Amino acid sequence: MVPPRYSKLTPALLDSLRSIVGLPHVLTDRESLKQNATDATGVIFRMPEAVVRPGSAGEVAGVLRLCDEHRVPVTPRGGGTGLSGGAMPVQGGIVLVLDRMNRILEIDRESMAAVVEAGVTTQAIQEAVEAVGLFYPPDLPTSGSSTLGGNIAHNAGGTRAVKYGVTRDWVLGCEAVLPTGEVIHLGGKLVKSSTGYNLTQLLVGSEGTLAVVTRLVLRLRPFPAHSWTLVAPFADMHAAARLGPELFRMGVVPRTLELMERRAIQAVEEKTGESHAFGSGGAIALVEVDGTDPGAVEAEAQKVGEACARLASGDVMVCDTPAKVQRVWKLRDSFGEILRPRVSRAPDIVVPRSQVPEFFRALDEVKGKYPAIETISFGHAGDGNIHLMVLKGSTAEWRDTVNRAIEEVYRRVVALGGTISAEHGVGAVNREFLKLAFTEAEVDLMRRIKMAFDPHGILNPGKIFSPGG
Amino acid sequence: MVPPRYSKLTPALLDSLRSIVGLPHVLTDRESLKQNATDATGVIFRMPEAVVRPGSAGEVAGVLRLCDEHRVPVTPRGGGTGLSGGAMPVQGGIVLVLDRMNRILEIDRESMAAVVEAGVTTQAIQEAVEAVGLFYPPDLPTSGSSTLGGNIAHNAGGTRAVKYGVTRDWVLGCEAVLPTGEVIHLGGKLVKSSTGYNLTQLLVGSEGTLAVVTRLVLRLRPFPAHSWTLVAPFADMHAAARLGPELFRMGVVPRTLELMERRAIQAVEEKTGESHAFGSGGAIALVEVDGTDPGAVEAEAQKVGEACARLASGDVMVCDTPAKVQRVWKLRDSFGEILRPRVSRAPDIVVPRSQVPEFFRALDEVKGKYPAIETISFGHAGDGNIHLMVLKGSTAEWRDTVNRAIEEVYRRVVALGGTISAEHGVGAVNREFLKLAFTEAEVDLMRRIKMAFDPHGILNPGKIFSPGG
Repeated sequence: MVPPRYSKLTPALLDSLRSIVGLPHVLTDRESLKQNATDATGVIFRMPEAVVRPGSAGEVAGVLRLCDEHRVPVTPRGGGTGLSGGAMPVQGGIVLVLDRMNRILEIDRESMAAVVEAGVTTQAIQEAVEAVGLFYPPDLPTSGSSTLGGNIAHNAGGTRAVKYGVTRDWVLGCEAVLPTGEVIHLGGKLVKSSTGYNLTQLLVGSEGTLAVVTRLVLRLRPFPAHSWTLVAPFADMHAAARLGPELFRMGVVPRTLELMERRAIQAVEEKTGESHAFGSGGAIALVEVDGTDPGAVEAEAQKVGEACARLASGDVMVCDTPAKVQRVWKLRDSFGEILRPRVSRAPDIVVPRSQVPEFFRALDEVKGKYPAIETISFGHAGDGNIHLMVLKGSTAEWRDTVNRAIEEVYRRVVALGGTISAEHGVGAVNREFLKLAFTEAEVDLMRRIKMAFDPHGILNPGKIFSPGG
Repeated sequence: MVPPRYSKLTPALLDSLRSIVGLPHVLTDRESLKQNATDATGVIFRMPEAVVRPGSAGEVAGVLRLCDEHRVPVTPRGGGTGLSGGAMPVQGGIVLVLDRMNRILEIDRESMAAVVEAGVTTQAIQEAVEAVGLFYPPDLPTSGSSTLGGNIAHNAGGTRAVKYGVTRDWVLGCEAVLPTGEVIHLGGKLVKSSTGYNLTQLLVGSEGTLAVVTRLVLRLRPFPAHSWTLVAPFADMHAAARLGPELFRMGVVPRTLELMERRAIQAVEEKTGESHAFGSGGAIALVEVDGTDPGAVEAEAQKVGEACARLASGDVMVCDTPAKVQRVWKLRDSFGEILRPRVSRAPDIVVPRSQVPEFFRALDEVKGKYPAIETISFGHAGDGNIHLMVLKGSTAEWRDTVNRAIEEVYRRVVALGGTISAEHGVGAVNREFLKLAFTEAEVDLMRRIKMAFDPHGILNPGKIFSPGG
């Protein structure tokens, strides 16, 4: 496949962009370009030539039509909290920031659905629907700044997927703009539909490579007013990994089942000076159960306690005040940020829930083979998703083996029935590994679908697929 | 768009098919051809030239490669219970029946997932997982004979979508064969994945036009051992339609909320001689709540009772024995079959849940305009899906107005934010109405996606899209 050829932005094209979105919404100052050159990975491949902030789907359509005609790359961007380089303009061109499109347009209580613009943050919709007794379950450590447009692009998962699924499960429809400028409307406030291809669900997780989603229809449910938060220590991640399968066997599906290596907690403690008395052992589990009926939720919490009594290395702590709950979540949510300076790569793998213990055994084997490689793990064990922090190294042995070790971890994950990214996306940073997850026929089919949406390859080029490969 | 040209099956091609699937599995006798010429609509457009029953994905691949090379149309078929002509060989060629591929390959309790072949019936997987305390929620009146392959093709909905969603929500992955013969593997026993395009969810609801799904990975959940079944009479469908929004406002999501026009019940009573004492009023609601905690479920049933006390026209009946529950479900499940001889067309519309009362007002207006048209409605009001039985007529006025009346109902449904098929699919019978639900740009995009999968248009031609249109 021949990679497309792109053009540079000319002064005339910049003027056209200004006439579409308005003078103040086309930015070319160095600071704006730099701010929009990367995401939470911090890596800068290339600077964009302009940052464009449309205010409506019509303006997005105008920008895309112009860029398609002139072969200017367009990289859509939400909150910039991504971890796979999805919002990086790796081919230059413009970054299309949807932050101005941040209105909650409708909360329909009787249909249990909401209609929002793509630039609304995850937290903003959570709070708005909770105010009327409804619930949008997906929750991320970055909910305050990540946007729903970004969530749909990467099919964001987060900490409640065990029970409530991922972004995909809560998107009923959308408005989107094709790279060639047509505005399309897909799905709606409908839990059932069997009319035409479900392009909504094709757009979820397509990392902004097929269309720019400008509006989302979200599914909601009644707010589960009752919840219990429990913390338990385990001898190590191997022991902790048995908790999920044990709970499922007991018929308990917690809303959250997070595992954290003790070393992740220690890293935060060192940084913040706060200490957490979680008992002894190398791993900690954070479990939440929730529901609308207080008795039913208490009975589930009881069962979590019973399972921990069998498997844990110490007492279960119940976070019985809002302050205690907040404290443990603040700890959990800070891992990514606090560990980042020490981390070289952060594979975001997922295996079938039953295979989490097996994954940790495989990881030990790989680490045994490559002794220079050190990792700290935490993650959403209840849904099989582990974040593996591969620490930076400075030795020649580290440099020689880090890529091979990561590739071997990915191979082992795929062999266990898992895949290379659970929730961060392939983006720019994992595209070389796509071939581990899919056959050539599968990747070719995906490329043909990309072509069906984006014949000139202007939308978010260099993501998911290796150029020309 | 130029419709593809197809070839007839030659004796040489029949021999090749026999060498792929085995002599006994290529049928050309008149009875077999006739049995596989239609689905539950009973309409025969055209007879197939052969019926082919592959035993594995490899055999499916062989058949498709051969038919692709020789431009022979292939129509995949599950249980033949469809209601939109999805399994009709409208261009002749072969019908590919997946009934031999009916093994349940794995029930993974710790991952809460199952792996099945496409020919397994909905009821077979329900029973198999319930035996180990798990639950596959989608349920249809035809669960005993419809297959999971057919369910995925039409994104089957059924009676539990209010709370548990539709087939789409329970499919995590699949094995499928492209029309050009490549076997692909998508998704897996993973609740999270952000790796490549989600082609699994594109295949769900694609009505067998993109690929032949041979194996499915299903998501499961703990079996809700406790349930209450309640029946209440209402003055008419307008009054009954208010029950759903009222329950959602109270925070109750029943697993089932079926509405039935009294006349539907009377039709069954006339046929079977059994009578049901449901109190007076023109409409009946059938409501079920379920869960794992008996107290929580009872509290929900109580709330349903309170809502009915406000809105119903008579007393709520609790089906407090398995025999009573079975009796009311037998009644509900027999509507389609018993009404069929009297029905000309059966639109399967869906509107946002909050718009069900508005839909019944719109329906009255349309019927007021076309007095020759008579309808009987029933359906899954809790999810906005109403089955509208348009009765046969014999007058010139009926013949002159029936199509216009149906088109006007569809237009009103789309204007309410709904769409033309909730769960039966577009198939052959609704393809002329696709343009009411989508713009030309949207249909063109779907056609390009069809081309990306099926460059020669051999797979299930004449479905979803109008030929050449």
